[in-house]
Amino acid sequence: MTMAPSVSYSITARLEVASHGRAVSEITRAVEHAGGVVTALDVNSGNRGKLRVDVTCAATDTAHAESLVAAMAEVPGVAVHKVSDRTFLMHLGGKIEMRSKVPLRNRDDLSMAYTPGVARVSLALAAKPEDARRLTIKRNSVAVVTDGSAVLGLGNVGPYAALPVMEGKAALFKRFANIDAWPICLDTQDLDQIVATVAAIAPGFGGINLEDISAPRCFEVERRLRAMLDIPVFHDDQHGTAIVVLAALTNALRVVGKELAEVKIVMAGAGAAGTAVLKLLLNAGARHVISCDISGAVYRGRADMNENLTWIAEHTNSECYAGDLKGAVAGADVFIGVSAPNVLTGQDVKTMNAGAIVFALANPDPEVDPDEARDYAAVVATGRSDYPNQINNVLAFPGVFRGLLDAQSTTITDTLLLAAARALADVVPVEDLAPDYIIPSVFHPDVASGVAAAVREAALAESGKAAPAE
Amino acid sequence: MTMAPSVSYSITARLEVASHGRAVSEITRAVEHAGGVVTALDVNSGNRGKLRVDVTCAATDTAHAESLVAAMAEVPGVAVHKVSDRTFLMHLGGKIEMRSKVPLRNRDDLSMAYTPGVARVSLALAAKPEDARRLTIKRNSVAVVTDGSAVLGLGNVGPYAALPVMEGKAALFKRFANIDAWPICLDTQDLDQIVATVAAIAPGFGGINLEDISAPRCFEVERRLRAMLDIPVFHDDQHGTAIVVLAALTNALRVVGKELAEVKIVMAGAGAAGTAVLKLLLNAGARHVISCDISGAVYRGRADMNENLTWIAEHTNSECYAGDLKGAVAGADVFIGVSAPNVLTGQDVKTMNAGAIVFALANPDPEVDPDEARDYAAVVATGRSDYPNQINNVLAFPGVFRGLLDAQSTTITDTLLLAAARALADVVPVEDLAPDYIIPSVFHPDVASGVAAAVREAALAESGKAAPAE
Repeated sequence: MTMAPSVSYSITARLEVASHGRAVSEITRAVEHAGGVVTALDVNSGNRGKLRVDVTCAATDTAHAESLVAAMAEVPGVAVHKVSDRTFLMHLGGKIEMRSKVPLRNRDDLSMAYTPGVARVSLALAAKPEDARRLTIKRNSVAVVTDGSAVLGLGNVGPYAALPVMEGKAALFKRFANIDAWPICLDTQDLDQIVATVAAIAPGFGGINLEDISAPRCFEVERRLRAMLDIPVFHDDQHGTAIVVLAALTNALRVVGKELAEVKIVMAGAGAAGTAVLKLLLNAGARHVISCDISGAVYRGRADMNENLTWIAEHTNSECYAGDLKGAVAGADVFIGVSAPNVLTGQDVKTMNAGAIVFALANPDPEVDPDEARDYAAVVATGRSDYPNQINNVLAFPGVFRGLLDAQSTTITDTLLLAAARALADVVPVEDLAPDYIIPSVFHPDVASGVAAAVREAALAESGKAAPAE
Repeated sequence: MTMAPSVSYSITARLEVASHGRAVSEITRAVEHAGGVVTALDVNSGNRGKLRVDVTCAATDTAHAESLVAAMAEVPGVAVHKVSDRTFLMHLGGKIEMRSKVPLRNRDDLSMAYTPGVARVSLALAAKPEDARRLTIKRNSVAVVTDGSAVLGLGNVGPYAALPVMEGKAALFKRFANIDAWPICLDTQDLDQIVATVAAIAPGFGGINLEDISAPRCFEVERRLRAMLDIPVFHDDQHGTAIVVLAALTNALRVVGKELAEVKIVMAGAGAAGTAVLKLLLNAGARHVISCDISGAVYRGRADMNENLTWIAEHTNSECYAGDLKGAVAGADVFIGVSAPNVLTGQDVKTMNAGAIVFALANPDPEVDPDEARDYAAVVATGRSDYPNQINNVLAFPGVFRGLLDAQSTTITDTLLLAAARALADVVPVEDLAPDYIIPSVFHPDVASGVAAAVREAALAESGKAAPAE
């Protein structure tokens, strides 16, 4: 597996160079020789007959970016003036903002949007609080809540380090589903305090998106908040992942011509995502699943199991397989990894059944090298954007919340998750399905709207409500 | 005191009317006869030769708006089809939204704003959390927090009824100081829980604006949060009011040629706002103050005083006046009311010293009819927008927070409040001061910038810090 240069490690270097015919080509050649990709070039006249050249190039990582700068500096006549990191530049001052939707040009505007006019709206809401979904931002707002305990693959980096990730999430909510999300990064990792805080701030939001909270606390946080609140609570790391995995597996099974109820599925990872994926698979009709964690297969009677593993043991692995992951994979039809890098090799994939499906979702380094896996598996998917079949939560959460908000839903149930997965799978027409195309791009225009419509309909059907009036 | 029709009670009525020459003039005359003001008129052709007329008119209150509709319905040939309330229309779906400041057009944009690129920013913040003020929304964001216990003059209407007010506040933050504020309406009125919740959500914000929390809890909430947090905590009902009152009083004293340290000041109201105004006046050098509450003057030894009243008794009323408000006002130079409607009459104002200053700030009905007060006082100010000299918190809080955020201030002190008041007073050049112009309009372009510059400078001077780098 080779890492390709990525704009996420992209720099812009300002150079000054003697103005002669080959100056620019020597610079771009130096970048390319060092393995970088030049993505933009601006040449201007500089001081005393020199050229000022801004070179933007993509690297594979920070060290590589530094080596690109060094390579440019070695070109005769080149002086490096300043190097900026495009990703950091983009983050200066944050990525999101608040905007007023109403004009505040003059005293009349103020007297309607604020005092005294707003008092009449307040009184109406004091008399009928449920109208908050009509007359306030509650109609369209979601809190993106984290305690910073399990941020991306970085671990327990805390609320400040989590904030740019939550801002990005909020931006995605807007981009893909026109939802107004605001990040709430908690200065506590105490379970009771997390629950109490989210419950306390709930009135202003139409939904809660929990994010990057470590297992097993995330299960309890979600369970308690769902019991307390009258707005839906969704833990994206669990349910977002589960929806996208189920959608992708649905289409992968269509490609290889197998049925969910018949295939043998082996999972690696029994954390938040793994457990949620497992539960949704079982809900969707999977019958032959073995879950593995770092100690091997989870089975009834295994020592030292927590509540979560005990549940898994009771609901999977009916034959009580007690071996390791590699042994479980032999003869399996489907492997789903939400665990750690490089726990399998291509040779392990070779032991799977014909028409094998491999989802290796650990980020950034998958459970098995996707290039190796593709030698033996019929369908391979990863979490990476530089391979086909990217399993990306952005495919699920915007549409899910759009549907929930539009239905003014007070809860979220497994039925809704299944409806979302089904709708997401169906975005790709059966005749277009292929080993390298089991899941649509996040930019496919039908993704969020399709998921939203399915979730809205399922939510309204469950609640027995008619569609909310405008 | 007569109420003028206001757009905050504005309706739009859709009428159908026989198309003859005087149709429209008969409708507008009907509105005017009923005491309404027509502010907009749209005439279109309707069905079967009739006209469709949309009449927008301002009323004094809800009952008056209904009587305007009735008056229009009585015009021969007019049928009323639909009546919309402009203020409610403006509130549909909420008044604010979240926007992304970065483009998310393609995979490259996603890979910088979200994974994998954002991981590098997260790691940088994990190593150096204080950079959150540079690389995240913390730099420019304020939480507008309420428990809904003392919303406007409406009382304890709860978090849902508070939400449109907090949205309006957030919109004002943006309009006047380009600050990204987000409303947090709490589903608790328990002091400990309020403190714990605000402390828990603090990492994502650069400041906390407490709003509409009832006394005496608001004092303790603020005191404890200030001790816990490394961002400034400002209770607008207290300090915003105090800043604007001190600024207006500074200029009113200039108009009448008296000195703050010399004048006898009588205050009505010892709640959140009253106490904060009193403290800032004392800080600014006032020496002769008597505070009154519903039981009359506050004095040392009075029975049944809470902690707050005891503090007031110890710091004011050195002569231990123990009578009622009207008695206190006799011979006073300044009356400041932050209490209840109609506690004084014009005759009471007549008993004040020559060059009397009357600030009657109860909303919407002042402590004394401003028309009556003006017969005897040299300067009269109210909280109302339909009289000159409106004491409006919008004059203070946007600039105060702009200054605090720009200084990356970790606290707010009385020195900063005094600097804000002084800067606000100085927006009106001394040569322009007049009995009807002691305080600038909220739309005066120098207000927020002037206050912000003064607060920023004072904050940097106090902290001994240099100006933060960009």
